[in-house]
Amino acid sequence: IHDGRTKPETLQWGGLSQKVLTLETMNPNIKKVEYAVRGPIVVRAGAIRKELEQGVKKPFTEVISANIGDAHAMGQAPITFLRQVVALCVYPELLKSSDLPEDAKQRAQRILGGCGGGSIGAYSASQGVELIRNDVADYIERRDGGLKADPNDIFLCTGASDGVVAMLKLLVSGEGKNRTGAMIPIPQYPLYSATLAELDSTMVPYYLDEDNNWALDIDELQRSLDEGKKQCRPRVLCVINPGNPTGQVLSRENVADVLKFAKKNNLFVMADEVYQDNVYADGCAFHSFKKVLHDLGPEYNTSVELASFHSISKGYMGECGFRGGYMETVNLDAKVKEQLRKLVSCRLCPPVTGQAALDVVVNPPRPGEPSYEQFTSEKNAALGTLAEKAKLTAEMFNSIPGVTCNTVQGAMYSFPRISIPEKAIREAEAAGQTPDSFYAHQLLEETGICIVPGSGFGQRPGTYHFRMTILPPTDKMKSLFVLFRDFHKRFTEQYS
Amino acid sequence: IHDGRTKPETLQWGGLSQKVLTLETMNPNIKKVEYAVRGPIVVRAGAIRKELEQGVKKPFTEVISANIGDAHAMGQAPITFLRQVVALCVYPELLKSSDLPEDAKQRAQRILGGCGGGSIGAYSASQGVELIRNDVADYIERRDGGLKADPNDIFLCTGASDGVVAMLKLLVSGEGKNRTGAMIPIPQYPLYSATLAELDSTMVPYYLDEDNNWALDIDELQRSLDEGKKQCRPRVLCVINPGNPTGQVLSRENVADVLKFAKKNNLFVMADEVYQDNVYADGCAFHSFKKVLHDLGPEYNTSVELASFHSISKGYMGECGFRGGYMETVNLDAKVKEQLRKLVSCRLCPPVTGQAALDVVVNPPRPGEPSYEQFTSEKNAALGTLAEKAKLTAEMFNSIPGVTCNTVQGAMYSFPRISIPEKAIREAEAAGQTPDSFYAHQLLEETGICIVPGSGFGQRPGTYHFRMTILPPTDKMKSLFVLFRDFHKRFTEQYS
Repeated sequence: IHDGRTKPETLQWGGLSQKVLTLETMNPNIKKVEYAVRGPIVVRAGAIRKELEQGVKKPFTEVISANIGDAHAMGQAPITFLRQVVALCVYPELLKSSDLPEDAKQRAQRILGGCGGGSIGAYSASQGVELIRNDVADYIERRDGGLKADPNDIFLCTGASDGVVAMLKLLVSGEGKNRTGAMIPIPQYPLYSATLAELDSTMVPYYLDEDNNWALDIDELQRSLDEGKKQCRPRVLCVINPGNPTGQVLSRENVADVLKFAKKNNLFVMADEVYQDNVYADGCAFHSFKKVLHDLGPEYNTSVELASFHSISKGYMGECGFRGGYMETVNLDAKVKEQLRKLVSCRLCPPVTGQAALDVVVNPPRPGEPSYEQFTSEKNAALGTLAEKAKLTAEMFNSIPGVTCNTVQGAMYSFPRISIPEKAIREAEAAGQTPDSFYAHQLLEETGICIVPGSGFGQRPGTYHFRMTILPPTDKMKSLFVLFRDFHKRFTEQYS
Repeated sequence: IHDGRTKPETLQWGGLSQKVLTLETMNPNIKKVEYAVRGPIVVRAGAIRKELEQGVKKPFTEVISANIGDAHAMGQAPITFLRQVVALCVYPELLKSSDLPEDAKQRAQRILGGCGGGSIGAYSASQGVELIRNDVADYIERRDGGLKADPNDIFLCTGASDGVVAMLKLLVSGEGKNRTGAMIPIPQYPLYSATLAELDSTMVPYYLDEDNNWALDIDELQRSLDEGKKQCRPRVLCVINPGNPTGQVLSRENVADVLKFAKKNNLFVMADEVYQDNVYADGCAFHSFKKVLHDLGPEYNTSVELASFHSISKGYMGECGFRGGYMETVNLDAKVKEQLRKLVSCRLCPPVTGQAALDVVVNPPRPGEPSYEQFTSEKNAALGTLAEKAKLTAEMFNSIPGVTCNTVQGAMYSFPRISIPEKAIREAEAAGQTPDSFYAHQLLEETGICIVPGSGFGQRPGTYHFRMTILPPTDKMKSLFVLFRDFHKRFTEQYS
């Protein structure tokens, strides 16, 4: 019997004054779920924002939300062409309007041609609009130097999260020590731990190497796997590249080594590649797991099972609210693919507006088309600014005594390490908080800066970190660092 | 140990040629999931449609999709005002355009004011944009004659399905005979059975009374509950009103009796009220579970726990592709509500475009506003046509020997009963098909009409039905009935 399940004798039941659904009677797996990116500190930040609106005096005048990868909320402008195409799909009367460019109109008409009844309000196929899946396949082929992608292997999703959850659902089976375990990087993006908790599955943590710019070390994978086998059956290896929250970008060799490890140990690879457009550091490049697998030759590329995830919430477009994304499967068993199709059909389809926005991302304006120049300049500006802020972030943090930060090679986050004095650690423990959470709450209350404590992502015992996005506008980031530096100094002195 | 889980000895493992994820090793609960609305017959219909495009000769020239409640796919036009508001939210440059009415612009600006960074591309709060939740609360208050609705009890969702799944997830706990069971109408909408299968929970079926226009009978609830208690712990009572696939509309007294039954037997009530705007028959009206509960007085309304679901996919707007909806909870334990908030936060937020479309539905143009007349006339036309087709459907089916059909009082479906000759039943069984599925496949192959076999929804043993939508255009429905009548006659003769 699973320990994650409520034992019958703890169920309170039958009294007329007792509710049916209580903390005691609810699904115990859901209780274990934690998602720090929107955890208590973010709730508190929202409350403070309301207090400020109501005129409550604080040592600061605004809350700076650096907790979540939400570019538009931080003022990044949407890509004009993307919005034009989606608006045309939503209200096709605009096809007659002279306010919108011809290439946007052509895209919209093409997308609507793939929709039921020519309406974006019709359900699409559960796997996504066929025409858009074809465009995704073409995009992947271009990305991977002509390597073939099959539209039947592509599943459009409600954001990448939806795909990750669907794939983990399929993979979890077995009882007790035979129950599926999933190898997860530490630090990790907490969607993984949250989903595994919900599925009553086991997280098998492997540590990224902070001393080596958060590299993924194969010996550590082996240690983790050996350890995991003592309590469960590790069947899945999750890799986030570029890293969230760590910002590292894996080298081609590293990806190849991971794939060889997966093959040797019969692991299904889940590659979270949602930051594939977000690579900033010199000498770094994105290498897709699929392409590297292919290049390893038939010994590997006919057998290693892989699911790769992408999203329109990140990159240069940052369209989080549309909830668009896709998953590509490689070497997935044909009958399992049928089961996956059946599973996703119960939720009918991903939002078609998000599918349309995804189509623009995978099929952007081409040279010579009216919107090409504006699109390219907006895209480059967005990525250029992110690259600047990535560089600025590590420089600023490393200039502060007691703080160290690896190079932000990619993605949208830094994960700096902070020293916390013993006295603060004891005080946090006395208050029932982790030291980094204690620190983060004080930072929020004193400066208005909202970041996520490292414990929400996992970190080596005795080390303390936080995740901060690189998304606030450059000016605001600069003032943020001044506020942060003063706070860290004060905090350190106060508890020394 | 749950019988739903794969036993360790059946896991095939470790051979190098063996895939990690196979039918044998995958999550056994997912294998049990079935969702007939998009099942094999719909797959076959898609294949036939492609064959027709390729010029393959068939006894018909088009596939008529009467399997799914997808109004736009069947040619229903979107509501202009809704699309204008969403298009403005997507591309706010249109606020400058003279092609769009002022009231649509005001709504869009108001919605954008509630979005992070003023962009529909930002994540919203996990529970949904606060301003839209407030509008939903106002809408519910108007619907329920001024009865207060609290925005904190409202969770916006990715279609109503998302809310149903979240609530069932919370409710499932316990092991073996203590595991949560959910009382589900038969026939039911198969989202319920699919979700319960995935959660390894037990369906406790109660039959709707076909001889009494699919009424919900309290004695039958009691029989079902008593029967369910032998194998699980029934804790949830799901009701679909207006009914899917049955089209019945519950009377006020019936709703009250259901609530009393729930109170007496400690059941959490899940009220699927997505067809609340789709009531056609004279003498029928929609009575919300929340309002009826309130009117039962404090003995009931301070204790019975209820979740009600609504959607923008149905009604007069039929905006399925936007995946918008909401759930309202009543008397939900405060700590459980916190757990629900945490659970939904892992998926970040429902699509914000769907939330914006929902805002128009709950906050439509008011008398005196520029778009009021057009909106009202489009809404009435859509509902009027549906009412006509609901009436036509029962009349036509009942005119065919061997077919009987209850009055379609509401929703979007008929669920006629068909006689299937013994010989056809034996032939179906020999082919490993249910008789109604055998019938439905022949209907599709011979006429191009795609309906869903009754076995996908559940029916009394020995009876056969199918679900057909009332959504094809009136002309097409009329020719559909001619095709169907001829087919049924032929089929009956062939197997007599």
